Amino acid sequence: MKPELIRELKEMLSDDRVLDSLDERYSYSFDASFGTFLPDVAVFPVTTEEVVNVIKLANREKIPVTPRGGGTSLSGGPLPVAGGIALVMTRMNRLLEIDRDNLVAIVEPGVITAELQRRAEAEGLFYPPDPSSSNVSTIGGNLAENSGGPHGLKYGVTKHYVIGLEVVTPQGEIIRTGGMTVKNVTGYDLTPLIVGSEGTLGVITKAILRLIPKPRARKALMAVFNDLIDSGRAISGVLTNGILPAKMEILDNPSIRAVENYQPIGLPVEADAIILIEVDGHPAAVEDEINRAAEICRRYRAKEVRVAENERQREELWRARKLVSPAITQVKPTKISEDATVPRAKIPEMFERLRQIRDKYNIHLVVFGHAGDGNLHPNIIADIRDKDEMRRVEEAVGEIFKAAVELGGTLSGEHGIGTMKAPYMEMELGPVGLDMMRRIKQAWDPDNILNPYKIFPQPGQTRVVLSE
Amino acid sequence: MKPELIRELKEMLSDDRVLDSLDERYSYSFDASFGTFLPDVAVFPVTTEEVVNVIKLANREKIPVTPRGGGTSLSGGPLPVAGGIALVMTRMNRLLEIDRDNLVAIVEPGVITAELQRRAEAEGLFYPPDPSSSNVSTIGGNLAENSGGPHGLKYGVTKHYVIGLEVVTPQGEIIRTGGMTVKNVTGYDLTPLIVGSEGTLGVITKAILRLIPKPRARKALMAVFNDLIDSGRAISGVLTNGILPAKMEILDNPSIRAVENYQPIGLPVEADAIILIEVDGHPAAVEDEINRAAEICRRYRAKEVRVAENERQREELWRARKLVSPAITQVKPTKISEDATVPRAKIPEMFERLRQIRDKYNIHLVVFGHAGDGNLHPNIIADIRDKDEMRRVEEAVGEIFKAAVELGGTLSGEHGIGTMKAPYMEMELGPVGLDMMRRIKQAWDPDNILNPYKIFPQPGQTRVVLSE
Repeated sequence: MKPELIRELKEMLSDDRVLDSLDERYSYSFDASFGTFLPDVAVFPVTTEEVVNVIKLANREKIPVTPRGGGTSLSGGPLPVAGGIALVMTRMNRLLEIDRDNLVAIVEPGVITAELQRRAEAEGLFYPPDPSSSNVSTIGGNLAENSGGPHGLKYGVTKHYVIGLEVVTPQGEIIRTGGMTVKNVTGYDLTPLIVGSEGTLGVITKAILRLIPKPRARKALMAVFNDLIDSGRAISGVLTNGILPAKMEILDNPSIRAVENYQPIGLPVEADAIILIEVDGHPAAVEDEINRAAEICRRYRAKEVRVAENERQREELWRARKLVSPAITQVKPTKISEDATVPRAKIPEMFERLRQIRDKYNIHLVVFGHAGDGNLHPNIIADIRDKDEMRRVEEAVGEIFKAAVELGGTLSGEHGIGTMKAPYMEMELGPVGLDMMRRIKQAWDPDNILNPYKIFPQPGQTRVVLSE
Repeated sequence: MKPELIRELKEMLSDDRVLDSLDERYSYSFDASFGTFLPDVAVFPVTTEEVVNVIKLANREKIPVTPRGGGTSLSGGPLPVAGGIALVMTRMNRLLEIDRDNLVAIVEPGVITAELQRRAEAEGLFYPPDPSSSNVSTIGGNLAENSGGPHGLKYGVTKHYVIGLEVVTPQGEIIRTGGMTVKNVTGYDLTPLIVGSEGTLGVITKAILRLIPKPRARKALMAVFNDLIDSGRAISGVLTNGILPAKMEILDNPSIRAVENYQPIGLPVEADAIILIEVDGHPAAVEDEINRAAEICRRYRAKEVRVAENERQREELWRARKLVSPAITQVKPTKISEDATVPRAKIPEMFERLRQIRDKYNIHLVVFGHAGDGNLHPNIIADIRDKDEMRRVEEAVGEIFKAAVELGGTLSGEHGIGTMKAPYMEMELGPVGLDMMRRIKQAWDPDNILNPYKIFPQPGQTRVVLSE
């Protein structure tokens, strides 16, 4: 990038919010996926007007702009693949309002997800989307990726809580979509189009989020199964008996073993699967439903069911699930976290397919995730320095995607496409489906300024984990 | 339309599914809004392939195509404004599957909404969207308009229950959006873009709908207020006390009087407002919550609170709300039903604005609607033969839209834009917002074949109710 453009950016914002030294730029060259790509400059706007000015400059000079939040993406969305400007939104981080009467929060994109959750709870309200990175991820990043989490089953995902946006378009104009009401059918619904568009269709500068009354009580149980098929039946059994749990998570045997090796907390290492169920709502309903859920698990041959009797025990049960990610990275340094999602009833079949893939490629694969909504997390543990292993991983990942799509599911339930899954888009969407998306991108961003090389596969692009 | 094209259509479908006589065409020239526009021909496809062929022919010949379902639209979406082909989807009406394990229904667009609701309930499941026309409206129409209803507060609207679509694009290609899973972030979320696009971006030929476990119990109450402001406070009070009712409806004094004049059911005709609250869920929770809601209403000076003790009494309470629409059409023959929506806390202010508009234009205005989500239904009762009255109505409608937008709300909460609200789109969206929508339409339908003259204002178009 020409030095005079850096100067222009510094005048536009301020010297300390335009970073162009190599070590500073390096901090914005990666996310939680693979690959590093140095931006030419990292800029930190604090107002919508500044975002507009940066994007107008980028359009004038045909420089790519890659917006980013906390950089916790697992799919490469915030990677400045083509260099240019890293547009770091973390300093637009004001939580502008929590409006109890209208049950909405108005936030800037840099607000940390957990901060919003805490502030809402302090008002007796609840913001359900709960990606596991919520202590570091920003709301802007969550919106850009349409983040999910365990609450998806009962409460839906991020897009279900976004009712209005202020967005700077790829050409640097400000638009407002939706508004302060849940019901709004004035024209095309641009809100969920921009949510999940991974920063390719606009930069979110403000969001109006829907909150709900905070559930008054919650209770959890853990059920241990000798046979994973039985655990799948128990999950269906709970739902078809009129219980809609807040969370329903599953851990397979390798996940259980990894946790016990990492921190022994008394998990049954011989079990084929553990499921964790949490119900929330009215205290009387919660009490009754957790007991009925326990009964259903026993009916489907759970060999042990532990119901947490108090909040401390509830947190104890959830530790097993929380420890999986740190535990498995102890095994080998490189963790490839997938989020292939299948219709819930296909979970046992997906587990079977994953076992076959594990054997075929001789890889270290553990599976856990959000069983209630079919959103599994097959995690491959490898060592990126082992070229032969990584080649097997690469092929295994492709087969995981294929298995999910063949079972009527999707490549990605909550992590996004970014750079990593772009080569597989057409497999799921077909050429026309992909073309209809591309037409929107072209109509909105004719010079391809905003987050280029994302979502849409590049000609000849085939690799997911390995760089070309 | 040239006779040889009619012949070609008859060969493509079958003689009895291509109607071109004047009296037959007349049946497809109107909906539940204003104006009649004769199509050149009405065709009734029964397969997706037939829809593809009709649309490809229309593209080849540059003939407009207007898709329609039950024709219950209140905003003009199904009106074949430019003639051409009325694409009547009512014979693609198979309810293909209710999948209990995956909690989804797969339907063709011609399925009647209430039929789906009944079939889901028979399986212990629940499809919450409940537009008041559900006994005659089709699911395809509901999807095209993103229909709402009283359940919007707790359960959201139609778009929140659509997880996958099969769609024929404006150029006659088949795409599949979303799928069988609630979580899916593979590319842009085209599902909610097409839902609510009023048949301008594609013809829905199949839909995958999310169902939820059927709530086990429900209870309702009616609260009578001498002052509408108090009723607004009671509504907020219920929500901020951790109760999320399934429905919260309001009737103003003219609505109450209209019902009592039409069918005396013992409503308090002196009351300033009545609110109806229904809670659903676990039996114990329902019992507790309805009592707490009653207490909150009394705290905010309700002069009477009736809690329905059984299902019969519950239905009795709801009769008041159900009778409003038939009652008011007894007053004068022309009913202009609006759906201006404001942030919930602005409801009292909106009522005040509506009172001023009623006085200023000397019109017959009654207000009822979905208080819980701010979606009011100001209904103007007039006589279309009275030119002077209709001119005042026309101006009043414009002021209602303006008031809603000024209070942070929207032109349309659930009825759609169609032809009737197109002139006011820019007021809410701004020129850039409208342009971004137009770019999508142009990118997908460059020859403007699918449902032209809808949503986007035509140059010089200013009238809403009166034809130009």
